[in-house]
Formats: sequence, structure tokens, C-alpha cells
Amino acid sequence: MAMIFDRIAIIGAGLIGASIVRAAQASGAANTIHVYDADPAVRARAREIGLGEVFDDPEKAVAMAELVVLATPVGAMGAAAAACARGLKIGAIVTDVGSVKQAVVTAVAANLPTYVYFVPGHPLAGTEHSGPDAGFATLFHNRWQILTPLPDQGPAYPAAIDQLEAFWRALGANVERMDPARHDVVLAVTSHLPHLIAFNIVAMAEDLESVTESEVVKYSASGFRDFTRIAASDPTMWRDVFLNNRDAVLEVLGRFSEDLAALQRAIRWGEGETLYDLFDRARRMRREVIDAGQDTAAPNWGRDETPS
Amino acid sequence: MAMIFDRIAIIGAGLIGASIVRAAQASGAANTIHVYDADPAVRARAREIGLGEVFDDPEKAVAMAELVVLATPVGAMGAAAAACARGLKIGAIVTDVGSVKQAVVTAVAANLPTYVYFVPGHPLAGTEHSGPDAGFATLFHNRWQILTPLPDQGPAYPAAIDQLEAFWRALGANVERMDPARHDVVLAVTSHLPHLIAFNIVAMAEDLESVTESEVVKYSASGFRDFTRIAASDPTMWRDVFLNNRDAVLEVLGRFSEDLAALQRAIRWGEGETLYDLFDRARRMRREVIDAGQDTAAPNWGRDETPS
Repeated sequence: MAMIFDRIAIIGAGLIGASIVRAAQASGAANTIHVYDADPAVRARAREIGLGEVFDDPEKAVAMAELVVLATPVGAMGAAAAACARGLKIGAIVTDVGSVKQAVVTAVAANLPTYVYFVPGHPLAGTEHSGPDAGFATLFHNRWQILTPLPDQGPAYPAAIDQLEAFWRALGANVERMDPARHDVVLAVTSHLPHLIAFNIVAMAEDLESVTESEVVKYSASGFRDFTRIAASDPTMWRDVFLNNRDAVLEVLGRFSEDLAALQRAIRWGEGETLYDLFDRARRMRREVIDAGQDTAAPNWGRDETPS
Repeated sequence: MAMIFDRIAIIGAGLIGASIVRAAQASGAANTIHVYDADPAVRARAREIGLGEVFDDPEKAVAMAELVVLATPVGAMGAAAAACARGLKIGAIVTDVGSVKQAVVTAVAANLPTYVYFVPGHPLAGTEHSGPDAGFATLFHNRWQILTPLPDQGPAYPAAIDQLEAFWRALGANVERMDPARHDVVLAVTSHLPHLIAFNIVAMAEDLESVTESEVVKYSASGFRDFTRIAASDPTMWRDVFLNNRDAVLEVLGRFSEDLAALQRAIRWGEGETLYDLFDRARRMRREVIDAGQDTAAPNWGRDETPS
């Protein structure tokens, strides 16, 4: 794979930042990789596991870098931009990996100098694990990278977007461009609400008096365990997502609750046909997800013992 | 593995019934396996794929069988028992695989002669697939089989329970005994509510005006796809579960909605600490589920490309 950038800097060495480092190393998309994390313990660990060249000063980490990737939780993006702003070279491309775009664009743009190219982005990739050790080179393979470019950024901006797109393709991702407001609504449905629901059901189960936590754990394979996986995701990251995509999340959550109330009523009144029709509709979307290459068709994701 | 029953009959050749046949064949837990399904098309398919000896008459299917397993949807259990009642031999053990126990016990017991031993049961095993082709021999390996024996059934009843337990162990399952009312509450939490939530979010996403169905499918890997798997489960089976475990489901659903409303409020008012604490608590249960051997620790269940 061709080199896309000579020198890049990754700010934040969690699951996503560390995976970008690993993917850039593996693909040769960058020659030199600088890494900074605000947490000294994370920096120490990043050094131990050879996660690029680790710096203790964010301005030094980004010096001379052609690409700077902000890979912190959404709520820390503005501060991360501010911390490295004075080190940025003229004409550098700055991007981020935030799961929310409108709020991040505002926070980051306000802290960047005018002589860099800010191209916001969001890789739809991750696992339930977090921290520098969780990163791996193939995380972005065949996953979507969404770019939400800014309007009216001058004649050199389109070339900057194209170069960033080439970088993500070198890491194995498929790249789409989208309006940031649209991104935030779509992700509220496909990602933020599912995570919120999972957090809620798992925390609720822990609190029940009628069923003990050990019973829930023991019999979790009957459905509940799937929710525990999503609910194991990083709590700081998700707190920031909900605080920063509030309106879109509340809108779709309102819709979810409304539909759930209707389902509750159908159960109470024994309306079997209503239940069947709804379950039958829901089933069809599974086939579409598999046909779109977004999940495996193997029963139970192949995680248990499977047909031989 | 030793033979446990000479002759068994499976009534209902869906995912669970077909898996019992396959597991009994593979383990040698039964010598002769008779199969009946109320649907002629399913019987034809069962014959094609060699699913035991297939009968067109339920009374003939159960004739001389030492064990009869009712493996229909919960709502059809009473009728299934009635359909084969006159063929049952004296002293036969009759069990079922229903996901709800109290309602099934009532419906089945009312249709059985007094000279058989009815030992209700529920294997906590399944996949999102259904029908005779979905069955496979290892489905019950290391999964829980819950038996909910009846009270006061006479001196020979305990031996019948033990023999049924030995059969399930021969199929690879771990066996627990439980009170039927307790079973229904525990499963409402670990299985019925998670499925209801998944059906609801998937059906809701299909109905949205703000985000198209193709967008949801395209970006589903960001969380939503996990819910589509559960929501692909058999709609008839699940309709019957909710109609027959109504009280327990409504109770835990009320609790879920209450907690979700509190979470909604925390998002609206920007209460970051409340969100963080709840997400952090939810995360811990994941470790317990993995430690209990109820799920794999592999990131994303290992379904995507994983760390090399």
C-alpha cells in the first residue's frame, strides 16, 4: 500500500487511536507516527507496547505532522485541539473520530488556527474493549468511515479531504461523506439508542429485587448476554455521546418509548395478531443487514458450538 | 454415551425439536426416534433431511415411546398434548420445551392421561434461525436445561425426573430444577424482555421518517445489528411467550420503562455523572457473564476481523 502521509500524530491512545496507529503501521499509510495521550499511565503503556513514538507534550507530538487525528472522547475534543493548536504546522490536516459531529465540529473548530484544514470524521468501528491494548490493525477493515467536511473552506480544502479519504481507504475502510446534522440523526438511531437501551436493561437487571444478579448472569445466554456486550463499552465515551447528541437521541428515544408502550398494551390485552405482525416485520430487517455485509449469517454469530 | 431411552417421540420439528433429534442421534441417548409435526410441509422436509422416523399421525408417533417431547410454540402445547394423548403408553415420560412454564404446565397437564409422568422443562438454547433445517446436534452443549417438576406425583415420579435429567445430560446440557413461577420471572428478565426490546427497536427503525431503512441497514454495524439478530427469532414462538407470560413480562417491562425515563431525564438535563455511574455499573456485569462461561470474551464475539 502506498504511503499517504509522511508524518501523522494521534491524540488519544484508546481503542480507536491505538487501532489507527496499528493500521497505519501495518498498511504503511504513514512513515512516522507520533502519539500523545493526556493520561500519563496510558502514555507509559503505549510506550511499553510500541504504539508509535510517544510524546509527553501534545504540541511536540503534532509538530511537523501532515495529519493530526483527535481520538479522545467527544467531550474532550475541544480541549485536545486547544492543547496541540500551537504546535500545528501550516497546512496540516486535522480530523477527529468523534461519534457526534455537530457538537464536535463546533468545539474543535473554535480551538484551531485558520491555517490548518479541519475535516471532521467518524469511523463506524469499535469493540466493547477499550484502552491502548484493545487496538488492532484490522479494526477498520470493510467498516464505514464517515467524513463531514466543512462548507466554504477555500480552494485547497477539497484536496485535503481527498487525501484524508485516501488515508482511511489505506486503513481498509469504506469512506462516505455526509452532512454533520444528518450524521447525528442517523447515528442516534443505529448506534446511540441501541447502546442506551443496552446500558438501561443491564443496569436495571442489577437492581431488581425479584431476580438476583447471579441468576441473571447464570441464565444470560437466553438473550440478555447480547446486551451486556454493548453495555461493556467505555462509559466516558458514551456519557459524552449522550450529552453532545442530546436532541437527536431524545427524539428517537421518545419514538422508541411510544412504540414500546403500544407493545406493552398489546401484551396486556392479549392482542396476538398485533404482536405477530410486529415481530414478523422486525425479522425481515435481519436479512437486509446480512445482505448488506454488515453482519455474519452464522447462528448466534458462531460464538457457541455450531452446526458441524 | 449410554442409551437413556429405547424409543422417544418428538412432537414439533422446528429448531429445538430438530436439534433434540440430531443430538439424540449423535449421542446415542435414544435408539429409535419418532417425529411428528402438525405442518405437512415440515413433515415432508423432515423426511428429506433424515430427521428420525417421521409419522403423519401423532398418536402413532408416540406409541410405545418411553419419552415424548412436546416441542411446539408455547401456545400450541395444550393441543399437541391432546393430539397424542390417546397414543401414550402407560408410564411414559412426557416433557416439553416451552419458554414459559406456568401456563404450559396448566395447558398440558389438562390434556394428559393420569398414567404418564409429566416433567415440564425448558432448554435455554436456540439461535435466530428456525425450522427443521436449523437444528443441529450441539445446540444444547453446555447450555442450561431447566426442569420444573410437579408436586405430589407419586412414588415413581422422582425416578422419571432423574431419567429425563440423564437424557438431557447425554445431549450435553447442564440440568437445573426450579419452581415454575420462579422460572417465569427469571426468564422474563434474561430472555423475554431482551427479545421484546429488540423487536421494538428494529420495528421502530423501520417506521422512522427521519432516517431511511436503507441508512439504518447500511450503518447498522455501529450497534443496531446486534438487535436485528435477536429480532430475527421466530415470531409465532415469541407471540406465544408474551401472551403466556404476561404478568412477569409486564412487571419487568414496567421497571425497564421507569429506568429508561430516568435516563432520558438525565440526558435532557445534562447530568453527566448520573450517566457515567450507570454506564460504569452496566459494564461490570459483562465480566460476570464471561466469567460464568455464558459468553465469549472475544471482541465483537469474534465475528469481524479480529486481532492477529
